[in-house]
Amino acid sequence: MREVEQDKFRRKALPVAEAQAKIMPYAKATDTEMVSLPEAHGRILAKPIDAPHPYPHFRRSGMDGFAIFSSDTTSCHAGQPVHLEVVDEIPAGSVPQVKLKPGQAARIMTGAKVPDEADAVVMFEMTESVLQEGHLHIRLIREIEPGKNITPIGLELSQGDVILEAGRKLTAGEISVLATFGIHRVPVMKRPRIAVFSTGSELLRIDEPLQDGRIRNSNTYLLYSQITEAGGEPFLFEAIEDDLAKAKAQVEAAFENYDVVVTTGGVSVGDYDIMADLVSGDSVDMLFNKVTMRPGSVTTAAVKDGKLLFALSGNPGACFVGFELFVRPAIGRMMGIAQPFLPELTAELARSYRKINNFTRFVRGRLEFREGKLYAIPAELDESGVMITIKDSDALIVIPPSNTGVEAGERVTVLKLPGGFHSF
Amino acid sequence: MREVEQDKFRRKALPVAEAQAKIMPYAKATDTEMVSLPEAHGRILAKPIDAPHPYPHFRRSGMDGFAIFSSDTTSCHAGQPVHLEVVDEIPAGSVPQVKLKPGQAARIMTGAKVPDEADAVVMFEMTESVLQEGHLHIRLIREIEPGKNITPIGLELSQGDVILEAGRKLTAGEISVLATFGIHRVPVMKRPRIAVFSTGSELLRIDEPLQDGRIRNSNTYLLYSQITEAGGEPFLFEAIEDDLAKAKAQVEAAFENYDVVVTTGGVSVGDYDIMADLVSGDSVDMLFNKVTMRPGSVTTAAVKDGKLLFALSGNPGACFVGFELFVRPAIGRMMGIAQPFLPELTAELARSYRKINNFTRFVRGRLEFREGKLYAIPAELDESGVMITIKDSDALIVIPPSNTGVEAGERVTVLKLPGGFHSF
Repeated sequence: MREVEQDKFRRKALPVAEAQAKIMPYAKATDTEMVSLPEAHGRILAKPIDAPHPYPHFRRSGMDGFAIFSSDTTSCHAGQPVHLEVVDEIPAGSVPQVKLKPGQAARIMTGAKVPDEADAVVMFEMTESVLQEGHLHIRLIREIEPGKNITPIGLELSQGDVILEAGRKLTAGEISVLATFGIHRVPVMKRPRIAVFSTGSELLRIDEPLQDGRIRNSNTYLLYSQITEAGGEPFLFEAIEDDLAKAKAQVEAAFENYDVVVTTGGVSVGDYDIMADLVSGDSVDMLFNKVTMRPGSVTTAAVKDGKLLFALSGNPGACFVGFELFVRPAIGRMMGIAQPFLPELTAELARSYRKINNFTRFVRGRLEFREGKLYAIPAELDESGVMITIKDSDALIVIPPSNTGVEAGERVTVLKLPGGFHSF
Repeated sequence: MREVEQDKFRRKALPVAEAQAKIMPYAKATDTEMVSLPEAHGRILAKPIDAPHPYPHFRRSGMDGFAIFSSDTTSCHAGQPVHLEVVDEIPAGSVPQVKLKPGQAARIMTGAKVPDEADAVVMFEMTESVLQEGHLHIRLIREIEPGKNITPIGLELSQGDVILEAGRKLTAGEISVLATFGIHRVPVMKRPRIAVFSTGSELLRIDEPLQDGRIRNSNTYLLYSQITEAGGEPFLFEAIEDDLAKAKAQVEAAFENYDVVVTTGGVSVGDYDIMADLVSGDSVDMLFNKVTMRPGSVTTAAVKDGKLLFALSGNPGACFVGFELFVRPAIGRMMGIAQPFLPELTAELARSYRKINNFTRFVRGRLEFREGKLYAIPAELDESGVMITIKDSDALIVIPPSNTGVEAGERVTVLKLPGGFHSF
């Protein structure tokens, strides 16, 4: 019967990396849009941003104290205190009002502009106030080196330096840099609009009472969360019908309004597997319909008018993995993220994994640090149909094809999931 | 002059942990609200959720194949094939229509309910179809063990099991569990409403042209991002004025409408430090106004009518650290997160850090894995006034008070920042 299966859908199993490579050319860049700075939080920068001016853009005082000529303090070296007349006061945000002459000082606050002619700031606490002939003076007893407590122009960035590369996710650090340079309208990538369909007449809506033999549609909500997390904008639709012509019409209509279509279920070899039928027809160009991986070996991708269709397994665990390995990188690439794949780490397997397979397994698991070393702990229940352990997983542990499994203590590659480490 | 400083604001420096402990009793739980399941993505669960039914709630077929009596296959053991009559077909979502008798089988799809009387499912691919007297039969040549390819009721969860604890952040895994159990309205914690003020007449708005001696207000946007990331709802206000009565009025008005007030700047000992004056007055109860840490030693917290006021440093680096160490845990605790502090890891210092200090330093840095081991790399520029390295930081490296600094290769504690690891 296996022969028949292979024939019916011409399934040629591809390794994960090859399947990913088939998808990426179709992950075309979305448009850009301008948003306000607060709205830019969490978005992907569309264009590189150069510094429009050096930063700091003036010589800044790093202390509350007095701007002085350091040369006035050389006599302190020999134990001779020096008195300087205070002739100006410079709060942060002001510019010096008086041109300082040797023997003079200006009271200055942290962050204020140091007078051009001064070359050092002495800390307030290192001075003593003295009235001389009715004029305020400060008394210094230590020599001050040139440049002391002055942040030079451009210490952090010169004009024209790239401050942020395109494709970068904007969080607190990036947002504060943009604010600093007055970039209050930010060019970001539009979020890919993703249509999500389930298939399968066994599915109840989440607000329906339970029925014998039927399960609730959890996968579209799983995908809603995964798409949101990946930076896409999910749109949930009614289930695809078990009728090929209607299914085609539904998918084609979705492609007119959305950038990507993701379905879940109906990709096996069963008699009711509408997506397997759909992608093997001529309404779409199939990229692959089998991958040498567990779970999710029937994960399928196709192209329609240059847009990607992902037909993921209906098993929750396989749907989850299929999204992370194929849909997430496509969404990321559409937004110009340089490395849109799950990050790969090396860890030590904390518990032996004995399930054998001729396909690569992506086993859900937790990550733990012990004394600076990374350990991966496979979930007890990681069948493709199992949904409950998704929420406790930090990573997918990559178990290569093997007749023996992998022993505790061996090195494994793990793919870090977004939001993991849960354990911390 | 240091004596004077200590007197003026009665500054007694507290260690970070003590300062945190002073805050937490005032981080009172927000109200709960009900949201739809998609809206619950990223929110914090307000109440524990018990499984309203076992999962799976019926005996589920793990394969496309045939439901049978395993006892019918015992003769296969001796090399004798067996023929079973196919009397029913059970797609996923249907319930069996025929009561099976020994010698009979039901065609069944993955995920469908197994007839109560059957005790095994044989894979489609292990069978051969045979017509006998006009009736469809299957031919089996291998013995099938009882329970084969049947997922028992409650394999993942029993009725009444806690599926999710209160205080848990809801992402893809949690959302799919809630969908599975039909929990389509979700009790979540209201997001704490946080009023954000800057102080300082040196600040330009982010849409103003640059002026000599003045800088743009980047800290309120930094805080906007940090608050959003921490789960709070930020509200940005005009700067607090340099007039004590007006400043008090602004802060008091904010407390009427918001859960927490955060200010940035004006906490030093300078002549224009309005927040330092405000918290030392009697309009609020000061919790602390000095912490034995760098940057941000002047980080200040107070209570007004049971609500928290955080007066963070105006230096970008110090503002950032002050938020992560004090404001983030308060927001997290208000939403019932069990561990609201930055997660602590141990890492090896990859480069010597020689700056000495009698306070604990929280040095921005990157994290890197090399062969499963965690390394921490301090940023080159980590002065409190430096803003540019915030965006490239994965963690705060904790450098204890020391006369010598810490050498490369020594173990250090690092506090993982949200969103880090950037390097991956």
